[in-house]
Amino acid sequence: MTDQAPSPLALETDPQYRAAVVDLLGVLAYGELSAFERIAADASLAPTIDDKDALAGMATAEYRHFVALRDRLRQLGADPAESMAPFRRAYEEYHEQTAPSDWLEGMVKAYVGDGIGMDFYREIATYVDEDTRALVLSVCEDLGQSGFIVDRVRAAIQEDPRAGGRLALWGRRVVGEALSQAQRVAAERDALSTLLVGGVDRPGTDLAEIGRMLARLTDNHSRRMSALGLAA
Amino acid sequence: MTDQAPSPLALETDPQYRAAVVDLLGVLAYGELSAFERIAADASLAPTIDDKDALAGMATAEYRHFVALRDRLRQLGADPAESMAPFRRAYEEYHEQTAPSDWLEGMVKAYVGDGIGMDFYREIATYVDEDTRALVLSVCEDLGQSGFIVDRVRAAIQEDPRAGGRLALWGRRVVGEALSQAQRVAAERDALSTLLVGGVDRPGTDLAEIGRMLARLTDNHSRRMSALGLAA
Repeated sequence: MTDQAPSPLALETDPQYRAAVVDLLGVLAYGELSAFERIAADASLAPTIDDKDALAGMATAEYRHFVALRDRLRQLGADPAESMAPFRRAYEEYHEQTAPSDWLEGMVKAYVGDGIGMDFYREIATYVDEDTRALVLSVCEDLGQSGFIVDRVRAAIQEDPRAGGRLALWGRRVVGEALSQAQRVAAERDALSTLLVGGVDRPGTDLAEIGRMLARLTDNHSRRMSALGLAA
Repeated sequence: MTDQAPSPLALETDPQYRAAVVDLLGVLAYGELSAFERIAADASLAPTIDDKDALAGMATAEYRHFVALRDRLRQLGADPAESMAPFRRAYEEYHEQTAPSDWLEGMVKAYVGDGIGMDFYREIATYVDEDTRALVLSVCEDLGQSGFIVDRVRAAIQEDPRAGGRLALWGRRVVGEALSQAQRVAAERDALSTLLVGGVDRPGTDLAEIGRMLARLTDNHSRRMSALGLAA
């Protein structure tokens, strides 16, 4: 898609594009802040001190990502809190609708919910200028959660095989809720949506490519569920 | 007190002293991990995105302190989780007994509870070798919480003066609970207590000096309550 990607100059010359990037960084930044809060809460629920340590370390890394996004928003002349505010409700409803009832549910949520979110942002990154893309890709990197969570969830299912059915249902619910919040955000934020569908002077992607993107997201989600030992 | 302080060599030659230092680093490390969890939970309750950012940043700094203590425990050949485990119950009871019912109570607790804790550890630091002392003092430094919390609490009391009475009672309860947990730890952990009262080959401090230390702790506590605009 890089032939379609705007140049970093467009941030200065194309106000609609700049608004789209501010939206993208805003939604990502609030997502990182809210990931910080959620992983820190998982640390409180963690059974052992070593697990607490591991999760607190991950939460801290999410906050570092948040800081990179916040500082970039400032650099673009945007107010970080204002840029994040439009996305607060979607994240809060997502977290309310998917409040884990125990530590394992928290782990599955972090893995499959954040996983599909990060995949989505990585897809979007192909449609933005290279400076923005580098930042988006760097905050979407895996912080080592994956290995830790896969280990813990598989061990728990081995110990209590009945947990597998419950957690599989839970994983589906988390992703369903994430998708419905994403659709709401797309419907409410025109600027952000134009990154995919194009603007007045910018070509968008075609429907067939959007279809392929959704297929990739679904495939990766199924792969994550399998990695946990869960039916997708 | 530095004439009484052991040399760093004592960590290798005096097993009782080494056990005392491992206890000290363990209690401090679990305290930082638990401060991380609590400040991160305060971030979730924070009314504005900027407040969330500020608190998440502080929680992250507590985790950095935790890492310094954990790594030093490893360097001394101690297992960090094992060294922290004896203190987990005291911290958990403290936090259960002082679960804030709103954001303001969380802020007052962080300020006066952590404040008296850090003061106490700074006092203890005069009785340990210089390497340990430097580490203890560095993790007891103010991370900028103080200014932030004082601003927020004073503003809230100005808006609703009745909050002052409730928060003053709350501050006293927090410190009372902290002291009773500290007494329990002192009673249970002989090695740790010998830092103050001395060991077979090490002089301790005298009762008069312990009295002066308690007076300093109380004075500083009253000063913090006044800074918040609360009666001690």
